[in-house]
Amino acid sequence: MTSATGRHLVDHHCHGVVLRDLDRTEFERLLNESGGPSPLGTSLFDSMIGLAVRRWCAPVLDLDPLVTADDYLARRRDLGFTEVAGRFLRESGTECFLVDTGYSPDAISGSAELARLAGGRAHEIIRLEGLVEDLLVAGVGAHELPERVARALEETTAVGAKSIAAYRTGLELPTAEPDAGDVARALDECEPTSAGAYRVAHPVVTGWLAWAAINAGLPLQLHVGYGDKDANLREGDPLLLTRFLRATEEHGVPVLLLHNYPFHRNAGYLAQVFDHVFMDVGLATHNTGALSAAVIRESLELTPFAKLLYSSDAFGLPELYHLAALLFTRGLTTLLDTLVDRGEAAPADADRISALILRENAQRVYSKI
Amino acid sequence: MTSATGRHLVDHHCHGVVLRDLDRTEFERLLNESGGPSPLGTSLFDSMIGLAVRRWCAPVLDLDPLVTADDYLARRRDLGFTEVAGRFLRESGTECFLVDTGYSPDAISGSAELARLAGGRAHEIIRLEGLVEDLLVAGVGAHELPERVARALEETTAVGAKSIAAYRTGLELPTAEPDAGDVARALDECEPTSAGAYRVAHPVVTGWLAWAAINAGLPLQLHVGYGDKDANLREGDPLLLTRFLRATEEHGVPVLLLHNYPFHRNAGYLAQVFDHVFMDVGLATHNTGALSAAVIRESLELTPFAKLLYSSDAFGLPELYHLAALLFTRGLTTLLDTLVDRGEAAPADADRISALILRENAQRVYSKI
Amino acid sequence: MTSATGRHLVDHHCHGVVLRDLDRTEFERLLNESGGPSPLGTSLFDSMIGLAVRRWCAPVLDLDPLVTADDYLARRRDLGFTEVAGRFLRESGTECFLVDTGYSPDAISGSAELARLAGGRAHEIIRLEGLVEDLLVAGVGAHELPERVARALEETTAVGAKSIAAYRTGLELPTAEPDAGDVARALDECEPTSAGAYRVAHPVVTGWLAWAAINAGLPLQLHVGYGDKDANLREGDPLLLTRFLRATEEHGVPVLLLHNYPFHRNAGYLAQVFDHVFMDVGLATHNTGALSAAVIRESLELTPFAKLLYSSDAFGLPELYHLAALLFTRGLTTLLDTLVDRGEAAPADADRISALILRENAQRVYSKI
Repeated sequence: MTSATGRHLVDHHCHGVVLRDLDRTEFERLLNESGGPSPLGTSLFDSMIGLAVRRWCAPVLDLDPLVTADDYLARRRDLGFTEVAGRFLRESGTECFLVDTGYSPDAISGSAELARLAGGRAHEIIRLEGLVEDLLVAGVGAHELPERVARALEETTAVGAKSIAAYRTGLELPTAEPDAGDVARALDECEPTSAGAYRVAHPVVTGWLAWAAINAGLPLQLHVGYGDKDANLREGDPLLLTRFLRATEEHGVPVLLLHNYPFHRNAGYLAQVFDHVFMDVGLATHNTGALSAAVIRESLELTPFAKLLYSSDAFGLPELYHLAALLFTRGLTTLLDTLVDRGEAAPADADRISALILRENAQRVYSKI
Repeated sequence: MTSATGRHLVDHHCHGVVLRDLDRTEFERLLNESGGPSPLGTSLFDSMIGLAVRRWCAPVLDLDPLVTADDYLARRRDLGFTEVAGRFLRESGTECFLVDTGYSPDAISGSAELARLAGGRAHEIIRLEGLVEDLLVAGVGAHELPERVARALEETTAVGAKSIAAYRTGLELPTAEPDAGDVARALDECEPTSAGAYRVAHPVVTGWLAWAAINAGLPLQLHVGYGDKDANLREGDPLLLTRFLRATEEHGVPVLLLHNYPFHRNAGYLAQVFDHVFMDVGLATHNTGALSAAVIRESLELTPFAKLLYSSDAFGLPELYHLAALLFTRGLTTLLDTLVDRGEAAPADADRISALILRENAQRVYSKI
Repeated sequence: MTSATGRHLVDHHCHGVVLRDLDRTEFERLLNESGGPSPLGTSLFDSMIGLAVRRWCAPVLDLDPLVTADDYLARRRDLGFTEVAGRFLRESGTECFLVDTGYSPDAISGSAELARLAGGRAHEIIRLEGLVEDLLVAGVGAHELPERVARALEETTAVGAKSIAAYRTGLELPTAEPDAGDVARALDECEPTSAGAYRVAHPVVTGWLAWAAINAGLPLQLHVGYGDKDANLREGDPLLLTRFLRATEEHGVPVLLLHNYPFHRNAGYLAQVFDHVFMDVGLATHNTGALSAAVIRESLELTPFAKLLYSSDAFGLPELYHLAALLFTRGLTTLLDTLVDRGEAAPADADRISALILRENAQRVYSKI
């Protein structure tokens, strides 16, 4: 029904690409959410995402599907990182990237560079914890900060804001805007490291920041579920957000639950019952490779079609933008084609649903893109 | 193996139908567990249940499958609510309805009316919180209430009792019958609203009511998992009931876990290890439409075939009784037929399992039907 | 790709077989995790595992597939328990059994007897709580115990250690080795029953034992998820181990999460992000019978292929070793064959992945086998 070529995806959550050549260890470190291959294990190519790279990325580098990992990586180095990045980003069919530029443990591209390499457009998503940490580093005082943050969110060119409360203080965000005095006191308690950096991890601060985005009318992205081991996955269940969602619904500002796996059914429930809740299965899609179809299917059980978005959550490896786009589009299209074949949806339904999920929902939610 | 026609289902948990014509907004409000279409979304026909209505309900109203939502709703109004309700209820193949009449935000049919429209039989399930609230409104004093409730449960014509503790105080019900004095004190604390109504939400009271049903030998239905956003789904995990189930097992009174999605595998585990536990996947079946097969499959992984029941949990729209019956019967039959085709079950097994789940388990559990 | 005959499995977690003839009630009691058929239900042959026994075990006893349960059990008695046990154990294709001998509510075979019946090899896994309980019964004092346990773990011929903290104190194990004084005090508090037995259920003791295995460099097996109703499944979520896993990762000692169902996706995440974490879906595989393919598929979504192991967790019935081996091998092989058919893995990949999961991962993890 929907064609695999000529995709015009909006990727509503991704990061930048690493712009240098990588040896095998460096490549494997960026492949999944572990810190690299285990001394007790084998190569991380021995995984669903490893198979997917060999199957679906090799042909983009003019290789046969399923070449060995070493042959794949040799070809990658021969072509050079710029050519490789450009090929995968263009191949992804992504027209518009919403880029979280707040996470850069490695030297990665900014959003403009990403857009240029892809031949597409990019917008920034402002990371809330990063915003306040930058202001603290700049020496802005605790009592001045709330107004400075509010103004920054009003004036930003970013099209949305992202909270990583899940990594800092958990998802049980407050059901009302924290009191200004409490915020000032919590900010006062933030101490810099010896290097002069800040790491905001106070529940009053993360709660206040989430509410600040709501008050500014900026779509609020929340890290939920699957990620690296710095977060405790148990505390990443989107149902922990229920009270916050109940409290914020009347504000009419979109709240976007990112990743969600393995709690994507829970996220689908929230997207059904709360007017302002949206979800995706980013990161999980490319990590589960050929098995991602089941994850996509489960995410559609309860979620209205207007509430599911596409995201890659790709970081670092340009392969991941391509894999996420290909696997999500393929999984969704296959599911919809099956419904059409069985007479459970009309061809026009499949086209419409596909367009909503791959592009139009994001265009409606992020009014500035 | 099992035939789709001539079904004789027992629907062990449902509500009444709305007996008036509905405009599009009213129809969508009753379609799923949200309060209606979101201003940030699209029509709720853009969902798995929306597709299922157009596919499977349209022909019952003499329309082609997959007509537009507007054409569907126009035909529905032309036929009138009585004709529409009768068609869907009869088409559901339900012989016997166990009706929870305690939830009526809208004017809905009683159980007798439902039975008449369906050409079947109906029995009532008494809602425990409603029973005590009605007695409070009637002015019965706190010290008199326990005996009045016990007598009502002994004398009731209802065939089972339902607790909505999940909506009021959570599923961690007490492991022993609360002390009579504590119950009286908790009831004393219940205050009427200005309109003179009561809303019982004291853990001692909900715990006492669950035990009162056990003591009366009435099969105890418990709301678990999926429902509207008045409950916190996180507090709806059936595993929260473990200690209560361990404490009540020796009483030999059936405890029926309703809905369960997305915790249906957890419920299946409880149905396997506790003698008196039964489960269903009502509400989730019709909401997940063409994707319900996976939910039904997962619910059968651990649950003994004697412990899974059919329920629709239909409320309001007569379409939902039909969809739940059709999708559950089809999902179960397809799964069993596949087992037979692969030589993993005999045809007689499939017939027997199907009869247990669609009808006989309920007839064994509810001795008064 | 992989052949069903000539399997050479390593079963990294199982128990002994019951060596006597069984009547129908006794057989059903050992079939799943309930205590036997419910007075409110039907025969436990009415379940996925019941169908699997009739389908896959009957031919091993020279019967037609899907004979009745009574015919099956009559033939079983005619052959006698020794012949029956030998047939199923040999048919399982298991070359090496790692046997937890610490659980014996019934008179069951030791590991040597199991190996002899199977025509294979067996190694013991030492149960940590049993070790300390035996020393307490032998009158070893609290202050002497830590050193005695450490020495026993250094000198043991067991190839790994198993903790049943999930049954005793929950999975939130301490993030550092408990203080020696605290351990001695906790041991002092352990009181024998009137029969002179001990049941260790102090969090300091279970935490200390888990750390003692890590310190001794013994692969640490942890009961997680699915089991009988003595444990509270809600407290069996492997994500409860996150902080313990973070604390123990640098020690480089393998930690093996057993069973995991219905939390196997959570376990897969842990196996991906922590270098030293491995997982299996034992017990769930044979209990879910023909539906086990989905459980196996889900366990492979995130788990690197070097981190998933085969186990049966069979106990008592020799049928369970056969069913677990057959269903797991078949489920894995079918999944891999499908990937090969769709061009998403090469035939050599399928062979390699299969060998890792069925045998080689265990051989790498358990250095003494």
